[in-house]
Amino acid sequence: MRRVGILGGGQLGTLLAEALYHLDAPVTIYDADPNAPAVLRFRDSLTGAWNDRVAIAKFFERCDVVTYEFEHIDAEPLRALAGGPPIVPSVFVLETAQDRAKEKQFLAGKSLPHVHFAVARSEAELRAAANEFGWPFILKTIRGGYDGKGQFFIAGHEDLDAAILALRERKSDFQCVLEEVVDLALEVSCIVARSRDGQGVVFPLFENAHSGHILDLTVVPARVPPSVARVVQDVALRTANAIELEGLLVVEFFVGRTRARRSHAEEADGLFVYVNELAPRPHNSGHVTRNACTVSQYDALARVLAGVPLTSPQMNGDGAWCMGNLLGDVWLAQGNERLDLSCWKDHPAVVEVVLYGKREARPRRKMGHYVTHAKTADEAMNAARAFRDALSRR
Amino acid sequence: MRRVGILGGGQLGTLLAEALYHLDAPVTIYDADPNAPAVLRFRDSLTGAWNDRVAIAKFFERCDVVTYEFEHIDAEPLRALAGGPPIVPSVFVLETAQDRAKEKQFLAGKSLPHVHFAVARSEAELRAAANEFGWPFILKTIRGGYDGKGQFFIAGHEDLDAAILALRERKSDFQCVLEEVVDLALEVSCIVARSRDGQGVVFPLFENAHSGHILDLTVVPARVPPSVARVVQDVALRTANAIELEGLLVVEFFVGRTRARRSHAEEADGLFVYVNELAPRPHNSGHVTRNACTVSQYDALARVLAGVPLTSPQMNGDGAWCMGNLLGDVWLAQGNERLDLSCWKDHPAVVEVVLYGKREARPRRKMGHYVTHAKTADEAMNAARAFRDALSRR
Repeated sequence: MRRVGILGGGQLGTLLAEALYHLDAPVTIYDADPNAPAVLRFRDSLTGAWNDRVAIAKFFERCDVVTYEFEHIDAEPLRALAGGPPIVPSVFVLETAQDRAKEKQFLAGKSLPHVHFAVARSEAELRAAANEFGWPFILKTIRGGYDGKGQFFIAGHEDLDAAILALRERKSDFQCVLEEVVDLALEVSCIVARSRDGQGVVFPLFENAHSGHILDLTVVPARVPPSVARVVQDVALRTANAIELEGLLVVEFFVGRTRARRSHAEEADGLFVYVNELAPRPHNSGHVTRNACTVSQYDALARVLAGVPLTSPQMNGDGAWCMGNLLGDVWLAQGNERLDLSCWKDHPAVVEVVLYGKREARPRRKMGHYVTHAKTADEAMNAARAFRDALSRR
Repeated sequence: MRRVGILGGGQLGTLLAEALYHLDAPVTIYDADPNAPAVLRFRDSLTGAWNDRVAIAKFFERCDVVTYEFEHIDAEPLRALAGGPPIVPSVFVLETAQDRAKEKQFLAGKSLPHVHFAVARSEAELRAAANEFGWPFILKTIRGGYDGKGQFFIAGHEDLDAAILALRERKSDFQCVLEEVVDLALEVSCIVARSRDGQGVVFPLFENAHSGHILDLTVVPARVPPSVARVVQDVALRTANAIELEGLLVVEFFVGRTRARRSHAEEADGLFVYVNELAPRPHNSGHVTRNACTVSQYDALARVLAGVPLTSPQMNGDGAWCMGNLLGDVWLAQGNERLDLSCWKDHPAVVEVVLYGKREARPRRKMGHYVTHAKTADEAMNAARAFRDALSRR
């Protein structure tokens, strides 16, 4: 069977490796960090810097197909490896997803629902575009933005000046997009897996709640009418088809209460659906599929990579599951090097805790997650909040 | 956190190691086979013969607690390591479970339901016991019997002579038990996990269907009335308490249609429940907990070993799940070194296939399993049979 290489040995690469091993597909991990969770755990791991072309070429030589667990990889060296093992999802998908301008231009070009936007490539272009675009807007850097990094709400000139100062300080290249503000009801994500022969399957919707711009809770099923869920799943599948996906694509959506005037929405039951962004890899919001769905996001991607047919993921029964992130802050609140889980006994709705084995707890660092199970989404979310409160109190 | 040593790197040790890693508990594997699945996969593995006391002592030195994935281990060398890291479940539990005579004497001593039995320690004792016990009976060797090895139905003297010949041929020591025949309705198993402080949790019942004495299908929930399920769970928990279990115990039950005249049954709804045997480790019938239950057998044992509190495992919704074994015969029927899973696309009820990564397909060797999900137990079992038929046809 094909040896699968995974660029990145964090929690997403680790859980993907587990799913691949379950299909008896041999795995090789590449990471810069000798203490990355998958490197510590699995026998077949290589370490080298992310810009070490020799080490990366050696890794590619060892593999029959290569995938990645994060999209902030420099695509250029990957292009240079053309002729070697296939990269799944393709470098085109990677380059589209890692660049907000390309992403939005792709959505617009394929008539997929998206928020109205403009692109600026310099400080001067940004100032000009701001006046032309109209206030307020959301300003986002084209690259390297995740967990709310490089995002600004701009109500007027004062906000713009402050954002420009902030971008200067971090030596930004001022490549950015301006986005119309959406009257947000909620954010949902929808995962699609698609095989080389174009067979696509779509997961149930997740609803994502953020805190401080970091994913806080993911609950499934999302609290939207079935008609909205159908539209979201349909758009997710069309997006995967349009980008000729092989592998896994997490499509993140805004669901708006009112129609954003200049944006391209799809409507259902008085709600307005827009694709926000694309992640062509397993996603932290998708951890919950390991518990809530008959097939997890990791299983689905592993099946594509190992050449095993896909089948449609279903909910495991009609309850609700909620995934909560465990950031390094929880460790710091406890003051322990290792997380004390003794309060779990008082929280029977918590069905699983997954700790990633990262050695150093830092604020806002994703160190683990947990999943609750309850009859309704609200109950599952309340149980999730209560457990994290209890963990953080000690 | 405590480093957990696992004696045995087959599928059970591998899946347990995964669950331990998810709790950030470091794991060391010991196996005689350098190609054992867990040895191939995980970084921290030691290999040495099962009777290599030096290698095993070195393994114990590296660990803070040691468990095992199979009970046919020689308990003597483990006793000799007393004073080292604790063995979980205890050597007493191991010695009881690996010896059918001790097992039955334990059940009888604790007034737990069991099938009437007699013990014979030589060929002469066996002949004498047979006449005294009364025909028919089931003859089982005390040690080393699994997957139907060393089991005989004895209707009369002719059967007994044939069994004695067979035992002589395999140089048996003629240590065996005679068991009253039960009018079997079905076989079920029930898993208990229990922590060092005596807190026990019990899993939903599984129903096991055998083929050629090897576990064939396991379906959950078992097709028994709720009153029977309650009795089985209660007996399982009492058994774990009586043996002062720390760790995991799979209690296998006979459910009889009529009361066996001389046996000690517990009755519910006109069915008669007997403990058949004990396995103090994760069990192949328990694979299905990974899909069907909020907590898997591996998670539960990992929590005990890592000192994390237990919570009660629940069903994932009200459907049914069926696990089917994949024996080496399926590989041999396909004629491929690697299993071709392309027929999976026509079997959407199959939610997972787990291949263990064993290098050589042999008849009756457990090489993998798969799980189906359906509305009812019958549908899940039919889907499981259909998938294996399709796999075996190629």
